[in-house]
Amino acid sequence: MAISKEKITEITDDDIEDLAFGCALLGTGGGGSVGGAILETRSAIRKFGSVEVVQLKDLPADGLVMPICGIGAPTISFEMLNNGGEAYLLRQEVERVFNKPVVAIMASEIGGSNGVEPVMWASRLGLPIVDADTMGRAFPEVQMGSFFVRGLPLTPIILVDFQGNVVTITPTSGASAESDSRAFTIAAGGVALMADYINPAATMIGNVIVGSLSTAIEIGRAVRGSTDPIRKLSLLLGAQTLITGKISEIKRRTDAGFVRGSVTISGTGIDADREVRIEIQNENLIATENGRVLASVPDLISVLDTQTGAAISTEEAKYAMRVTAMAWPCDPLWRTAQGLKTVGPRAFGYDIEYVPVENSPR
Amino acid sequence: MAISKEKITEITDDDIEDLAFGCALLGTGGGGSVGGAILETRSAIRKFGSVEVVQLKDLPADGLVMPICGIGAPTISFEMLNNGGEAYLLRQEVERVFNKPVVAIMASEIGGSNGVEPVMWASRLGLPIVDADTMGRAFPEVQMGSFFVRGLPLTPIILVDFQGNVVTITPTSGASAESDSRAFTIAAGGVALMADYINPAATMIGNVIVGSLSTAIEIGRAVRGSTDPIRKLSLLLGAQTLITGKISEIKRRTDAGFVRGSVTISGTGIDADREVRIEIQNENLIATENGRVLASVPDLISVLDTQTGAAISTEEAKYAMRVTAMAWPCDPLWRTAQGLKTVGPRAFGYDIEYVPVENSPR
Repeated sequence: MAISKEKITEITDDDIEDLAFGCALLGTGGGGSVGGAILETRSAIRKFGSVEVVQLKDLPADGLVMPICGIGAPTISFEMLNNGGEAYLLRQEVERVFNKPVVAIMASEIGGSNGVEPVMWASRLGLPIVDADTMGRAFPEVQMGSFFVRGLPLTPIILVDFQGNVVTITPTSGASAESDSRAFTIAAGGVALMADYINPAATMIGNVIVGSLSTAIEIGRAVRGSTDPIRKLSLLLGAQTLITGKISEIKRRTDAGFVRGSVTISGTGIDADREVRIEIQNENLIATENGRVLASVPDLISVLDTQTGAAISTEEAKYAMRVTAMAWPCDPLWRTAQGLKTVGPRAFGYDIEYVPVENSPR
Repeated sequence: MAISKEKITEITDDDIEDLAFGCALLGTGGGGSVGGAILETRSAIRKFGSVEVVQLKDLPADGLVMPICGIGAPTISFEMLNNGGEAYLLRQEVERVFNKPVVAIMASEIGGSNGVEPVMWASRLGLPIVDADTMGRAFPEVQMGSFFVRGLPLTPIILVDFQGNVVTITPTSGASAESDSRAFTIAAGGVALMADYINPAATMIGNVIVGSLSTAIEIGRAVRGSTDPIRKLSLLLGAQTLITGKISEIKRRTDAGFVRGSVTISGTGIDADREVRIEIQNENLIATENGRVLASVPDLISVLDTQTGAAISTEEAKYAMRVTAMAWPCDPLWRTAQGLKTVGPRAFGYDIEYVPVENSPR
């Protein structure tokens, strides 16, 4: 991604729209739609103050960092609000289980509302936020993060729901981490707030995607006021346009704690007579045309409003929307053998070989 | 129940068959079939020694008591063995969460294998077992115990599965305690080992069903070698015979972590032309004849082998078995307003008024 190396040091009320624009794009349809997160986060910052952004190396080596994210089906979180107290309970339980104070929080995934809401929680808790995440995008399952891929030992997972129920899971495998967390989330009504891979800052260094918050905000700033946002984004991200057209079919069901289905885009203009279908499990997983794969996980596939360049989340997609589907390369971590084993097409049940989007036939 | 007040002080290898006979009867079809539990428990006692049986008042007032039980669908536990280490992990997590040692364990429910296996765990852990339980029988849901009915505050619930996954739930309500525990149990494959309402001995006094182990063993001893076990049990329990006949239909499905369905008994001999149907959610809930209720929760309904008097669990019932269905009064705790609200017919979705079995029309 042609993103500059400059890092932000603070997030203020004025940054939230840009942050949310970038997070929505990096969410590849998932991570939760950002509309509600923008309102909640701006409101929190006005009340509790701006948020200090730190790099891992600036924290005490043994300072506990709490990565957090919402878990569940975005179709449900779209309608279910936070009660506002989840992160307090979460921090309290984390500090009890790990027997030391939390010094900073971090977004587990930068995509969608899961990239924006940690800023709200940081403001409310009065904690700094680390300029990093574990995906550089959004993925649907608990084990699909950099810590797992890099082989960091599993740590207790803490979940809190809107009723105030608290669960601590000590899993024996990535699969158990996912299935036990998902089970609680479903019992909680479909959405919960989660902290996992809670570790000292020093343990995390070298095992995260660095600069995620800076990247998301830079994406938002670059496009703000642009007369051709799609072109601007293509250049910035090194992205390919898969199709420009309108949404002609949506299949979407909320099932076992996920939203699954597909979005079909029928081409218009130069893409007339073409049709691209995108398969979904919370996130956009695979884009195909007549059965031919144009792009797939772990590369990023986003569906954008053709006029504004704003990313459209899975739960916001509607029939007849004018959209452009784009795809661009993921972080190199995901293209390693262990990365592809964890989040490649086969990890989602598709029996196809991964081809980097820049090498896919057009 | 016309059971003597004499209490046992030790459970040896020789007691297990009698204990299991009594527990199966008190299980009212649920709590897990006792066959495997007998083998596991006798084997543990031979290896780790007999088990000391204590009364709550004999324990240190602040000594932590760990009530345990298997949770899940008996149709699954019937086929899924313990790995032998679950209770060690459970004790370790309980002691970590409560920050003090466990001084004794207790059966959460005396019914079925859940009345027998705590003796195995006590032997393995080298801990005494309390001569009490929280039901005096078996009930299917987590909140259906004496501590909940008596209004004791909820405490963290700890669950362990055969893979070694450990979960701690801090619930905000009895409903959440049940749904969150059940969710983990389903994710664990359908069965888990659970400790809940972990409290100091002094807190438990007056809030348990006293003498459950003694009662179960006394039932087993009384019937052993009897030439007319059914008659012996009727007198001992003050039980009514609902029907004598054979099983003519079984509906049984494993669904959402429970086994649900019904068993129909067609009368023979003096009961020819009669038919009694028993509705099941793990346990036998309601017995009806032509839509008329003969007996219902919280009173105890058991289906016995007509020859031996041995109780037949839900998952063991088979077509054409020669059986006698019996019903007898529950502990007075369950007939209080709060007791009936928790485990009366309406708690299981049946829109009928509870009538004590001794007052039901015949």
